[in-house]
Amino acid sequence: MRDALVAAAFRLFLERGYEQTTVDDIVALAGVGRRSFFRYFPSKEDVVFPDHERCLADMTAFLAASGEEHEPVGRVCDAARLVLLMYAENPSFSVQRYRLTKQVPGLRAYELSVVWRYERALADYLRGRFAGRPDGSLRADVIAAAVVAAHNNALRSWLRSDGQGDASATVDHALGYVQSAFGAAGPAPAPAVHPAFPALPALPAFSAPPADERAEDVVVVVSRRGAPLWRVVQEIETALGRDGTS
Amino acid sequence: MRDALVAAAFRLFLERGYEQTTVDDIVALAGVGRRSFFRYFPSKEDVVFPDHERCLADMTAFLAASGEEHEPVGRVCDAARLVLLMYAENPSFSVQRYRLTKQVPGLRAYELSVVWRYERALADYLRGRFAGRPDGSLRADVIAAAVVAAHNNALRSWLRSDGQGDASATVDHALGYVQSAFGAAGPAPAPAVHPAFPALPALPAFSAPPADERAEDVVVVVSRRGAPLWRVVQEIETALGRDGTS
Repeated sequence: MRDALVAAAFRLFLERGYEQTTVDDIVALAGVGRRSFFRYFPSKEDVVFPDHERCLADMTAFLAASGEEHEPVGRVCDAARLVLLMYAENPSFSVQRYRLTKQVPGLRAYELSVVWRYERALADYLRGRFAGRPDGSLRADVIAAAVVAAHNNALRSWLRSDGQGDASATVDHALGYVQSAFGAAGPAPAPAVHPAFPALPALPAFSAPPADERAEDVVVVVSRRGAPLWRVVQEIETALGRDGTS
Repeated sequence: MRDALVAAAFRLFLERGYEQTTVDDIVALAGVGRRSFFRYFPSKEDVVFPDHERCLADMTAFLAASGEEHEPVGRVCDAARLVLLMYAENPSFSVQRYRLTKQVPGLRAYELSVVWRYERALADYLRGRFAGRPDGSLRADVIAAAVVAAHNNALRSWLRSDGQGDASATVDHALGYVQSAFGAAGPAPAPAVHPAFPALPALPAFSAPPADERAEDVVVVVSRRGAPLWRVVQEIETALGRDGTS
């Protein structure tokens, strides 16, 4: 019955427009009563986004099941991929909804609140992982926002192409950009917090891309400006996977 | 009159609660008619955020006045500082509003739409600056989201402290983190798009922190894994500000 309500609603939204369609119209077409509608959907807006609650619950469970062995930035990227899967399960429905959402300001506002909830779920997880570390909440919020923005940039590009092409590859590429900026531990904290940042531990942050990207990938080296040059070069050699003789 | 309406509205919101206050109550206390209210504010929600439209206009004008000489990531950080200035102009009002917004879901939704407009203004500017560059729109969206998240993390921390402390220093520190991740051109684009990424232009991305942070700052070097080692070392020496003999 839930699927029948969504199908009836979208048929009417496309025929008449979203604003011109009432819940009564939807239940009449689906052949059910108003109470059935509101058992599944708190409001007319919710029928436009029928799967976000499930997806948010899945994401929260996925993050809660994480362990210390999961690199945090990679983990939130994987969590964001759950949202993509929901869209990619049904491309034509996703494209229809994208067009509808662009036209109706009330749905844009609803969507912003949904996106904000995803972003908070990612940020809350990262805050837990970064707890006690310098700038933990700052890093968590910034990385969560960057992951969501990258995901949505790729998702919208796929939706604008009418769901053609490989959505996963597009999103992987976008998330790869975020991982290149924040991968592993992210850039070192801004220096004001660490006037006494010690010399050797100042070289910890290598973004280690997945093994299948090694052929053409990039290496990011973060170093304290005062670090000895030989130490920096040694770290680069390690990162490049060569000794100094090449 | 505009200020009197804002003052009357906030007095009533704090005394009775936001939901329990009508526009009629506000105009009665301010001693003006309903039409005067709606001349300044389209809705009751808008009186809670009386300065965002002006601030958005200021930000848009600031970005439009940018030239090629402005490093784009630094420029959007400076644009975000305009929002902070608006909050810091009147700390007690900003703290009151922060508490109110946390309590009223409708105001949270309104605030999300305002934040989204700031983020779009920053992203649109960056898209223009990155036009024609690989992953230009992706980089623009991610950096804009990161700047907004960093700004808001710092702003909320200041608001939670009841507007005590140095808001500018807190925001500068947070924006410094984003600049360390994306400063200058940001990390190199993810490799999938550039299988033939040429060797010498593959080393463009140095984050150059402000001069006053140089004493204890960090250097970020982004290099293609296949780049010749001597070239990487040369770039590091340049970034560290030394020749290879030290």
